[in-house]
Amino acid sequence: MVERRTPIPVKDAVNKIMDHVHRNGEVEYVTIDECLGRYLGKPLKADHDVPPFDRSPYDGFAIRSEDTQVASSDNPVPLEVIEEIGAGTVAKATLQAKQAIRIMTGAQIPNGADAVIMLELVKEVHENGKTYIQVKRKVASGDNISRQGEDVKNDSVLLDKGTKINEGTVALLATFGYAKVPVYKKPVVGIIATGSELLEVNQPLEPGKIRNSNGYMIAAQIQKIGAEPKFYGKLADDFDTCFEKIKQTLAEVDVLVTTGGVSVGDFDHLPAIYKKLEAEVLFNKIAMRPGSVTTVAVKDGKFLFGLSGNPSACFVGFELFARPAILSLVEADFVHLQKEKAILDKDFPKPNPFTRFVRSRVSIEDGKLMVSPVGLDKSGVVSSIAYANALLMLPGGTRGFERGMEVEVLLLNGEGSASIWEKE
Amino acid sequence: MVERRTPIPVKDAVNKIMDHVHRNGEVEYVTIDECLGRYLGKPLKADHDVPPFDRSPYDGFAIRSEDTQVASSDNPVPLEVIEEIGAGTVAKATLQAKQAIRIMTGAQIPNGADAVIMLELVKEVHENGKTYIQVKRKVASGDNISRQGEDVKNDSVLLDKGTKINEGTVALLATFGYAKVPVYKKPVVGIIATGSELLEVNQPLEPGKIRNSNGYMIAAQIQKIGAEPKFYGKLADDFDTCFEKIKQTLAEVDVLVTTGGVSVGDFDHLPAIYKKLEAEVLFNKIAMRPGSVTTVAVKDGKFLFGLSGNPSACFVGFELFARPAILSLVEADFVHLQKEKAILDKDFPKPNPFTRFVRSRVSIEDGKLMVSPVGLDKSGVVSSIAYANALLMLPGGTRGFERGMEVEVLLLNGEGSASIWEKE
Repeated sequence: MVERRTPIPVKDAVNKIMDHVHRNGEVEYVTIDECLGRYLGKPLKADHDVPPFDRSPYDGFAIRSEDTQVASSDNPVPLEVIEEIGAGTVAKATLQAKQAIRIMTGAQIPNGADAVIMLELVKEVHENGKTYIQVKRKVASGDNISRQGEDVKNDSVLLDKGTKINEGTVALLATFGYAKVPVYKKPVVGIIATGSELLEVNQPLEPGKIRNSNGYMIAAQIQKIGAEPKFYGKLADDFDTCFEKIKQTLAEVDVLVTTGGVSVGDFDHLPAIYKKLEAEVLFNKIAMRPGSVTTVAVKDGKFLFGLSGNPSACFVGFELFARPAILSLVEADFVHLQKEKAILDKDFPKPNPFTRFVRSRVSIEDGKLMVSPVGLDKSGVVSSIAYANALLMLPGGTRGFERGMEVEVLLLNGEGSASIWEKE
Repeated sequence: MVERRTPIPVKDAVNKIMDHVHRNGEVEYVTIDECLGRYLGKPLKADHDVPPFDRSPYDGFAIRSEDTQVASSDNPVPLEVIEEIGAGTVAKATLQAKQAIRIMTGAQIPNGADAVIMLELVKEVHENGKTYIQVKRKVASGDNISRQGEDVKNDSVLLDKGTKINEGTVALLATFGYAKVPVYKKPVVGIIATGSELLEVNQPLEPGKIRNSNGYMIAAQIQKIGAEPKFYGKLADDFDTCFEKIKQTLAEVDVLVTTGGVSVGDFDHLPAIYKKLEAEVLFNKIAMRPGSVTTVAVKDGKFLFGLSGNPSACFVGFELFARPAILSLVEADFVHLQKEKAILDKDFPKPNPFTRFVRSRVSIEDGKLMVSPVGLDKSGVVSSIAYANALLMLPGGTRGFERGMEVEVLLLNGEGSASIWEKE
């Protein structure tokens, strides 16, 4: 049957999805060397000051500043070096008047000392089996001391749950002793590619057929946002088999993505499957190019994304709709592609009633974002995705766009945006 | 011994490294679902056209355009529907005058047809057991046909070796049947953290000691650029044991990174170890803050990076010096951090003779890059790294910098730059 579909605006489609997302991911523990790119499952809170003690940022001598009050080039003050401490060791002595302790970078400031003078600024002299330094300048109390807690105060919350773990986060996790790190479990995203034209990647070409590239592309899109793709093969032609497979798969995954078979063709079982599943269809047509025939449904809190079989339509549909739903499961803040303004580098004279998402490259010229489309802008085209780092977003309407205009772009490799589709 | 060291400019340091890099990585094969983020080991070349045949981008009817030359609303032309083909099947018939073949999206254009008319634009009628469509408009030859090779021409080189594999690359690899993908082996980077103040991540704090955060941070930096970190623990205090350990480790890795023990302290064995190894020390002091006491040496074509024990100095030293050497091993083009211009959002009134690298955040406002420092700008500080996405680069000299000035930034999460440190 040919089904009549009413397109809804992109932002309404995204907002319908965001109204149904769950932010209730499960937490698991991974070792600290495996946590990069995962999402913190609990807030990262300091359980001690950093530094944990006053320490020396340089190699030098811990001294009492008051001993140097009269020091000058003409009147060098000799201080007796009574001990030598490296990082990790604590001085035994408490500093008395006219004494100094040789101290290495990172070592704890000895009791009695209130300043450090750098190694390069003093002269060592040896007399009667003792070592002295000649201090030729006045040193202020507190000079060259890294104060306990100046970096991080005990009990402060450093990062919220849902924060994507970067290399600096790893340093903090190590500092606070997280040998095991609480992270959200990777959402498991099932992939079913439908279409009798599809060959497996290892099959030779046949007349009228193409290899299944969408399935692997979506798997990469899923991996890129830190989720776990799981392949469930293809759908059979017969309805009951299809229905059982979708039902079974849905039970095993957090999110299900299908590609193909959601065009307005006769052979498409998906609408009937959604119906029999009693899934709520949020929408089945969007006023956008490519990807207008994207269908999104929800069943028992799990999303089913029915993406187009056209490579770019499939790509765009995943980024706009599946990405925020999946990232919500790990409590991420920036679930959407990062939206920014850029200067258009090409004319698009022909208006289009639908919002267009054009595979593009954003480059930065003298600190300003410029955007140019890449490759052929047809929804069946696969090559341009490899060269794109952004989607140029051209709102639908009656006007074209000219080179030099300010337009909106969605960055594919950015940090993401928390909210880009304002509700009306 | 206190060693005298002469600082060299940052760009000279980087250029000395680039003069010694090797671009001779080994190639291995991984399955297509494991290749995301790896670097192509061979150029990706098309071995067939894409699409591999003329095909229909829509659901509709394949027709002969000449049959529609007189078609109009007043004069609908009836065409007999003689066959129906889905994607993946090939029409048996060759289209004759006044015939049409029902065709699905992605299916091959039947012989004899030279255009497709969309489903929505015709009316189906049934007469005498036959099906006809009524065509009410003139269709041009070639309308709605995606041409063989319009996306990718057979034999074209799509991506060069050394290209970082993204989700679009994966789609291309699948299209051309790469079930196994040639990628450069991950460079193995050994990590040795030195310093008697260092506790393991799972040890409780002790007076004067801190946990080893640099080792894990560097491991994350290594993972982030697609290489493989390998921990080799700490160095002992005794010279001969140290020497043997460094020598052994170097034999097992492609690159060796040490952190700590390269300050100008007395307890530092590394200079003597480099000497005994007969490694060529490229430099041991750089006119930069933080990280001035970074040492880089080369032994039999393998790099030894002696990074500072201070967290931010260590971080910056890795990004500026180790990163391009490691990425060269996988033939990457953009081995350096991405350098861009940005508007400074804060005053830095105090001049500094050394080039400064300030942990910062770049944000985009109305399409323009703005940069603000994050956290405390001291080399011992670890927390600010977690919040940074860029290094603000302030050249050394006698002047300060003011809010609103154009400055250079190095983006930590960008696509990288091929060359940012011009030789003089």
